[in-house]
Amino acid sequence: MVTTEIGYTTPDAITVRGLNLATEIIGRFDFIDMIFHTVLARRPSPQEKVMVNALLVTTADHGITPSSLSARLTYIGAPEALQGAVATGLLGAGSVFLGTMQNAAEMLIDGARTLPPEASDEAVIAAARAVIKRHKEERRPIYGVGHPIHVDGDPRVPALRELSRANGYFGVHWRLMDAIAAVLASGGKKLPVNAVGAIAAIVAAMGLDPLIARGLSLVGRSAGLLAHILEEKQAPMAREAWELVLRADPRNVLP
Amino acid sequence: MVTTEIGYTTPDAITVRGLNLATEIIGRFDFIDMIFHTVLARRPSPQEKVMVNALLVTTADHGITPSSLSARLTYIGAPEALQGAVATGLLGAGSVFLGTMQNAAEMLIDGARTLPPEASDEAVIAAARAVIKRHKEERRPIYGVGHPIHVDGDPRVPALRELSRANGYFGVHWRLMDAIAAVLASGGKKLPVNAVGAIAAIVAAMGLDPLIARGLSLVGRSAGLLAHILEEKQAPMAREAWELVLRADPRNVLP
Amino acid sequence: MVTTEIGYTTPDAITVRGLNLATEIIGRFDFIDMIFHTVLARRPSPQEKVMVNALLVTTADHGITPSSLSARLTYIGAPEALQGAVATGLLGAGSVFLGTMQNAAEMLIDGARTLPPEASDEAVIAAARAVIKRHKEERRPIYGVGHPIHVDGDPRVPALRELSRANGYFGVHWRLMDAIAAVLASGGKKLPVNAVGAIAAIVAAMGLDPLIARGLSLVGRSAGLLAHILEEKQAPMAREAWELVLRADPRNVLP
Amino acid sequence: MVTTEIGYTTPDAITVRGLNLATEIIGRFDFIDMIFHTVLARRPSPQEKVMVNALLVTTADHGITPSSLSARLTYIGAPEALQGAVATGLLGAGSVFLGTMQNAAEMLIDGARTLPPEASDEAVIAAARAVIKRHKEERRPIYGVGHPIHVDGDPRVPALRELSRANGYFGVHWRLMDAIAAVLASGGKKLPVNAVGAIAAIVAAMGLDPLIARGLSLVGRSAGLLAHILEEKQAPMAREAWELVLRADPRNVLP
Repeated sequence: MVTTEIGYTTPDAITVRGLNLATEIIGRFDFIDMIFHTVLARRPSPQEKVMVNALLVTTADHGITPSSLSARLTYIGAPEALQGAVATGLLGAGSVFLGTMQNAAEMLIDGARTLPPEASDEAVIAAARAVIKRHKEERRPIYGVGHPIHVDGDPRVPALRELSRANGYFGVHWRLMDAIAAVLASGGKKLPVNAVGAIAAIVAAMGLDPLIARGLSLVGRSAGLLAHILEEKQAPMAREAWELVLRADPRNVLP
Repeated sequence: MVTTEIGYTTPDAITVRGLNLATEIIGRFDFIDMIFHTVLARRPSPQEKVMVNALLVTTADHGITPSSLSARLTYIGAPEALQGAVATGLLGAGSVFLGTMQNAAEMLIDGARTLPPEASDEAVIAAARAVIKRHKEERRPIYGVGHPIHVDGDPRVPALRELSRANGYFGVHWRLMDAIAAVLASGGKKLPVNAVGAIAAIVAAMGLDPLIARGLSLVGRSAGLLAHILEEKQAPMAREAWELVLRADPRNVLP
Repeated sequence: MVTTEIGYTTPDAITVRGLNLATEIIGRFDFIDMIFHTVLARRPSPQEKVMVNALLVTTADHGITPSSLSARLTYIGAPEALQGAVATGLLGAGSVFLGTMQNAAEMLIDGARTLPPEASDEAVIAAARAVIKRHKEERRPIYGVGHPIHVDGDPRVPALRELSRANGYFGVHWRLMDAIAAVLASGGKKLPVNAVGAIAAIVAAMGLDPLIARGLSLVGRSAGLLAHILEEKQAPMAREAWELVLRADPRNVLP
Repeated sequence: MVTTEIGYTTPDAITVRGLNLATEIIGRFDFIDMIFHTVLARRPSPQEKVMVNALLVTTADHGITPSSLSARLTYIGAPEALQGAVATGLLGAGSVFLGTMQNAAEMLIDGARTLPPEASDEAVIAAARAVIKRHKEERRPIYGVGHPIHVDGDPRVPALRELSRANGYFGVHWRLMDAIAAVLASGGKKLPVNAVGAIAAIVAAMGLDPLIARGLSLVGRSAGLLAHILEEKQAPMAREAWELVLRADPRNVLP
């Protein structure tokens, strides 16, 4: 059967997950309610709502990133196609930036599979060592640690950890994430937990599919990209950024 | 100067529009606060928050649309690259679907430029006639009216109109949108206001840049696409949809 | 009927525009033959083949452009998804860069509609004035002239003009394009014909749909993007380019 | 240093890999020459030119695929943004469709690393068994075999094998690919070599980076997408295809 359970349409009504969009959803659901309703077919608890808001806020964007810079570079070529600029800014969310939330959440869910909720610190450390060993053997990176700029610690992590504690999502996944960083540090590698690791721990603790971690980061990022593109329209900088890069090679001569 | 006012970063702190992301935003702002903060450099009023939530909820998606179908078709080819599937679903938001919120908002802002807040019904009707005349002369479509499925009226429009009334955003832009549909109807063209027109009227009434109408629809849609892609992962239908289309041409023979 | 004339498939054979892909096309058609066969359902003449090769070669790319830079920025975030980086590099081909080949070709076809093949220079100049006047009235840009770097003349234009002459495609469209630049120059605006204008003149002279001008530029560009992405893999520069832009704002502090 | 070796620009000249684009490339290079020049910094041999033409021709597209269908669905929403529709059609080239040429080429290069050019049939079979064993252990798919429609054999493969023989590229990589299918068949799994496997064998035999296999398929596919989009403009079918899928769920009611 070629069907979706997300919704269907008749001339008179749009039904989303069993509810009438016009009479039962619009004006009654906020955006987080709607995300839970369409993606998970249920309403969020107040705690879940706090956490998903925090995820979207954290991933929205901040300043010049490869994502916002490429979106702006696309916008100046095709200002009539906003959707192309936003799509551009999302396409870099892969195995290195942003998309790794999915990999990190998978790593934590996998690594904590045998840990009981009240696991001892020793058990969590052992699980962390096992994760590091397995990833090394399979030549896969350790996700969720280190940052090219925030070398001494990602400032978003304490805020997200505090929020997780306050809402009941600070459990084995967070502890495993922290333990992985601690084991690496004791081995001489200063790679503190980063925002990707924190969000992965939250998504794992909430019992969400890791794909949702990556997906929510795309939703959050799309809002940040909108801010960048609107600014690019009103106070452009992408063309100058391009020229700056061009001029870095003295063989390029601009008029 | 190659700078953005949206934010900057140091090893210790991320600053977004003058606030410290970790200590002043995460946990304090919900996602709508963050959209206003990054895009408009201010906080939303309670009424604005209601309206933006409604916009995001309305555009999230419902069932099989060209947008969700193309996202699913991309996902089955590249399931490892969620970002590509979401980007695909956004790329169709152009001058025919979804992207027209921008055009419709521009049409309403332009058409209502000389209308005072308390314009008479006659003045609004006259403005509607002027919009229709100008668009006909310039061979541009009238935006925000008609729907291929909801031929007798888009069910989302009454809900959005009611919400606009309740929150103080039912003014000349909404009246102009309604008047355009009425003038078309009196000329024998049954083209009721659709969700695009309703959202355009809301965005115009809120005084937002029309680009933001289109941008918010992309944010909302990205959440709906996430729901479709997660379902495609768990209960696939895109491959069968493709085969259904293939079989519609009897020259294609499947095993 | 939900069908395409481009091709169909059975377990034993793939038919493209009436020919068996395996036995009648592969090994017999070069890529330009295939483009003509799939897009236009015919084979190219030798002259057409020369011109389409020149179009693809001209649009392939050269050095750091917004297109290649954004593709590289996407690649470093998602190196596992080459398709996303290539897609990124294409998404900027809009109304300002590259995509304008379509607009320019439409402008020339429209503007030359009443010009006979042997039109006098005066008639061509008059047509050029009419194009400029109409575009000014409709507040549309004049396409195909001016370049931010090649301010005294785009070096590709003489090469493309020569090739058009040698292959029988130097007619009213080229003359109109040249006349538009001449009229602008006589009005004090030094905006020489650029590569977009030259390609538009070629496409118009070949009698191709203007959409094909833009489409071929995407095909050509995709090859150039492949070169950039392969180099980015082997000798990266995008991360440093990003940091260069970050450092241009002294509020950003990198470790 | 933030530089590229692909090219640089001055007001007077565009230099691509050391040659003047206007005076040394346009009109002298065909598109395949240009691909080699930009990507590999050298000219192709006549044999390489035949093979790359065959690769581009084979991947151009044929009929309704997830790639062409999603491109058409994007086009009907945003007909003003051709680049978005082409980008859409490329974004599905991932680990399941098309993109696997890269994985398959890597598999063959890896698997044949210890095979001398004149390896005995026994040695090739042993290498095939080793590849299958390793992929099974690492839970990775075997690439380049099987096809949902061409269940008894992909018709493109004999054509590509013949062409490889005629041009000196039928060596250990092709033999390994054939042996992998033979070993699978002797184990009861009828999974004949498909076009992906054939192209991977060619790319491996030519000594090209596997990324180039995937990249060339994107270049070829972009031409096929152009054909589909031009047809969609002239003889639309995507809207009906969408409705066909909608109607497959009886809960959807169209007017």
